[in-house]
Amino acid sequence: MLHTRNPNTFANGPLDRSGHRRKDAAWLEAAAQDASSLVCAFLGDKPFLQEAAKGFAAQWLAPQALALADRGAPTLFLGVEAGGAAVFAIDLPRGFELGGSVLEGLGDFADLRMAAATLSDDDAATLGCAKALLDWHRRHRFCANCGAGSTALEGGWKRVCSACGTEHFPRVDPVAIMLPVRGDRCLLGRQKRFPPGMYSALAGFVEPGETVEEAAAREVLEEVGLVATSARYVGAQPWPFPSQLMMGLIVEVEAGDTQLEDEISAVIWLTKREAKAALTGGVDTPSGRVFAPPKLAIAHHLMQAWIAEA
Amino acid sequence: MLHTRNPNTFANGPLDRSGHRRKDAAWLEAAAQDASSLVCAFLGDKPFLQEAAKGFAAQWLAPQALALADRGAPTLFLGVEAGGAAVFAIDLPRGFELGGSVLEGLGDFADLRMAAATLSDDDAATLGCAKALLDWHRRHRFCANCGAGSTALEGGWKRVCSACGTEHFPRVDPVAIMLPVRGDRCLLGRQKRFPPGMYSALAGFVEPGETVEEAAAREVLEEVGLVATSARYVGAQPWPFPSQLMMGLIVEVEAGDTQLEDEISAVIWLTKREAKAALTGGVDTPSGRVFAPPKLAIAHHLMQAWIAEA
Repeated sequence: MLHTRNPNTFANGPLDRSGHRRKDAAWLEAAAQDASSLVCAFLGDKPFLQEAAKGFAAQWLAPQALALADRGAPTLFLGVEAGGAAVFAIDLPRGFELGGSVLEGLGDFADLRMAAATLSDDDAATLGCAKALLDWHRRHRFCANCGAGSTALEGGWKRVCSACGTEHFPRVDPVAIMLPVRGDRCLLGRQKRFPPGMYSALAGFVEPGETVEEAAAREVLEEVGLVATSARYVGAQPWPFPSQLMMGLIVEVEAGDTQLEDEISAVIWLTKREAKAALTGGVDTPSGRVFAPPKLAIAHHLMQAWIAEA
Repeated sequence: MLHTRNPNTFANGPLDRSGHRRKDAAWLEAAAQDASSLVCAFLGDKPFLQEAAKGFAAQWLAPQALALADRGAPTLFLGVEAGGAAVFAIDLPRGFELGGSVLEGLGDFADLRMAAATLSDDDAATLGCAKALLDWHRRHRFCANCGAGSTALEGGWKRVCSACGTEHFPRVDPVAIMLPVRGDRCLLGRQKRFPPGMYSALAGFVEPGETVEEAAAREVLEEVGLVATSARYVGAQPWPFPSQLMMGLIVEVEAGDTQLEDEISAVIWLTKREAKAALTGGVDTPSGRVFAPPKLAIAHHLMQAWIAEA
């Protein structure tokens, strides 16, 4: 087991994914009947949660809940938890009514991004994985190669085209998210859609034909007009909106005037001391009071990693 | 510009991708008419190459070659090279005959993986990117969301569904490739499909809901039965077969007996000295003469990075 715990929400998945069980139809069928098995249910992108002391917790259902699944959606096998129970995820049919259903009184559906701040690390990782996979199935019912319908197989980890036989696997999009730094200062950017005062790291998708570091340097040049001279990887976060692999980098940049592309409405340079304050309540600057993203975002931990550097 | 050169083939792309030009139809049209523009042509997965002193070089064609493109395939805009010329890539129609065509005598089509060993770094990176993108278009002509046909837009960097309007972007699959190490020894695995004596690093796709490091640890456990205690990222390689982002990690493992899954037919532990020999001609071991992968593979450079560590 990895001795270093990743600080990012949705990381540190607690399940043994037991990939060899995915092709074992008899085992999966037995697990779906086993009273100890656990099921999480989604209505659209929203997981079914229970209220917990400080907010929310996953509301794990007995395997009878598998019968509630939308007929057009697969039953996902997520893996096996520490106690040995198989863990499944299902999509409820669109228009599912909680009132009058067997789930009434057991909890409610909530936005995963909002709920994640109070979920346990284990619940966040498991529900995040389920959300990404269920959402992928919803948006990939047809074969991109020939247009025919495809069918989910192997506990939801694969789809196969009914006409041309092409296999399709869940998509994960690599993204570079980077903190440009120069000397004792880091640069944060602001997008118009951010809450007032919020600034964050820069980010962009890794494209075919480039490395993570090349993508980071390209995006820094495109978004704020600065030239990167080095990029060092800090760590990653699985981000289930819809299914990214966020890879955090600290990027050293050359001196120069920033030139902002449309997406970025403003930038600010913060010292380590200011960055620390921005992470913990905000810091007053000539641009007004500035906040950095909460712990949910890898940008938060990327800034912390840079602040902690000698 | 990044001061550290990535040692991997297909990395260090020389083009300015000029993402803002992709949406500029007038600019793209003018570039397609500009006599200085450069075109690389593919027949299936094979680029059109010329013979060079030590093997192959890209055979760049004048923009008139754009007229040769398969009507069902997009003209890709890859970016702008250092001299300011726009660079395009096209698919030739299936069944294209070199003999009698305007390309006759200018070169031939060759397997990119074979040719990459002698291509310049710049040509390998540009052709690798083109190969990944062209191949993606070939396999994604239909909308995965509704099954209708989709259309390539923005110089080939996007497809849009003609029926439901869903946007589709080129896919890049993140892969963890890792060298398990313990003390002065690293572990290499052998797959049956490898040439005799060849051993390499282990690898597997990063799945939804996990980090690169978690994927590395999971794959080491699945493939050889060893428990990882730490994983450190070394660097990445864009791998255009079909379109992976290979991320190399050195993984420390606990002591233990290896247990091999079907895919791995044998493993071997090599000291740094032996690993160095395996990279440069081979090393005699009780399992016979052992070779490590050539420079084309990130496994080669991952081993070199580990050997160079203090």
